[in-house]
Amino acid sequence: MASFLITGSSRGLGLELVRNLVTLNQSTIGTIFASSRASSPSSDLAQVIQTSNGRVQYVQLDVNNQSSVEAATATVAQKLLSSKTGLDVLVNNAGIQISEQKPSLVSAADLDTTLSTNVTSVHRVTAAFLPLLSQGQAKKIVNVSSTLGSIDLSVRSGVTYHPSYKISKAALNMLTVQYAAELGPQGFTVFAVSPGWLQTDLGGAYAHLKPAEGARQVTDIILKSSPEKDNGSFRDIYIEGDSLYTGANPPW
Amino acid sequence: MASFLITGSSRGLGLELVRNLVTLNQSTIGTIFASSRASSPSSDLAQVIQTSNGRVQYVQLDVNNQSSVEAATATVAQKLLSSKTGLDVLVNNAGIQISEQKPSLVSAADLDTTLSTNVTSVHRVTAAFLPLLSQGQAKKIVNVSSTLGSIDLSVRSGVTYHPSYKISKAALNMLTVQYAAELGPQGFTVFAVSPGWLQTDLGGAYAHLKPAEGARQVTDIILKSSPEKDNGSFRDIYIEGDSLYTGANPPW
Repeated sequence: MASFLITGSSRGLGLELVRNLVTLNQSTIGTIFASSRASSPSSDLAQVIQTSNGRVQYVQLDVNNQSSVEAATATVAQKLLSSKTGLDVLVNNAGIQISEQKPSLVSAADLDTTLSTNVTSVHRVTAAFLPLLSQGQAKKIVNVSSTLGSIDLSVRSGVTYHPSYKISKAALNMLTVQYAAELGPQGFTVFAVSPGWLQTDLGGAYAHLKPAEGARQVTDIILKSSPEKDNGSFRDIYIEGDSLYTGANPPW
Repeated sequence: MASFLITGSSRGLGLELVRNLVTLNQSTIGTIFASSRASSPSSDLAQVIQTSNGRVQYVQLDVNNQSSVEAATATVAQKLLSSKTGLDVLVNNAGIQISEQKPSLVSAADLDTTLSTNVTSVHRVTAAFLPLLSQGQAKKIVNVSSTLGSIDLSVRSGVTYHPSYKISKAALNMLTVQYAAELGPQGFTVFAVSPGWLQTDLGGAYAHLKPAEGARQVTDIILKSSPEKDNGSFRDIYIEGDSLYTGANPPW
């Protein structure tokens, strides 16, 4: 029974990951810790929790706040005590995207904030939960990235939108690779995954896919991932018959 | 006569770039603006300035400080007035590296500081000098990156040292690509360059090359760069007969 912690679970991909995991086999999916920075879950998440028979538990966790992250670590550790296991899977899903037209017009404060939230905070959460993850069986750390963070694809597209987000996801990919190098020898699988362009608040109404579809594919990638195949990798989703979402690993 | 602005010129690669440029043909190299955050140049830089016959001019510029960057922009604009030209080449060389063993031990504050200095500040300086660069002939923006910022090479090496620096340089590479996409259509050449592992304060005593050697190769790359060949690229230095420094563009 693998336990999960998913950050940024109040809406969007995080919420759909929780929704999807709770539908899966109870003999393989254990407690799902759904976190967000709010003191109580969003109404959508609260509904999922209410109908989960205790399988989904809410944890307040503001990824940008060290004290909040430490308190969340203690909460999760306490809740796992009875099962005498560690945390199996950490999904660093919380992130922001500020709407921007082109790099020269980016506010330096917005770039700093995006980098801090999408990169430094992933590090903060990962480092804090590492002792619990080391006690887990699965030892998986999944960082929600984006093909927009692919420098190679960015060169090819020549599109200038949302540079802070792209810069932060390229940086997140390097953070992922660094953790993979450190933790791979200890049996961890650390990888980045692009969930597709989803119709979330972040992705907008014109995006390709329903959030639930992205969540199903990301869940599939997480459950089938292995240290040999995936540690230090950059995964993309697979949609049958789709020329864009072929499942091939994006270039860095 | 191309004018240059080089940030972080008090020592290391920045100082050597100034030293090297001033030895070159006066009919091709114009005013060299050497900047650092100090109110007056380092003694090494002061010596170069004193013997430069006015070709090297000191500009105080703290890349992390918006007011300082704006004041420096005004200073350079004023100094260029008499020649009725803009700024030709901006070399974003200022940067930091904090010594770190592995990602899980990184201080979140150090990661934030490294990202802000090595990424956001390059954006701050570039955006501020863009009007002057648009009035220049060469229209070159050169971001000093590192092969340590190559995610692909990092996967292959599996080395965990200095993660904040690596993360910041991967992010800088994406920033470079974003500016290249915006400014390429206006005739700019925006690229990242790895100067080699140099025996500077940052590179340490065990590094491969003397700073002056790295500076010669980087200068050569800058002077021979063209929009068609180099906009949006990641360049590396060439050392004759060296199996590491082949001059091939590093992978992202």
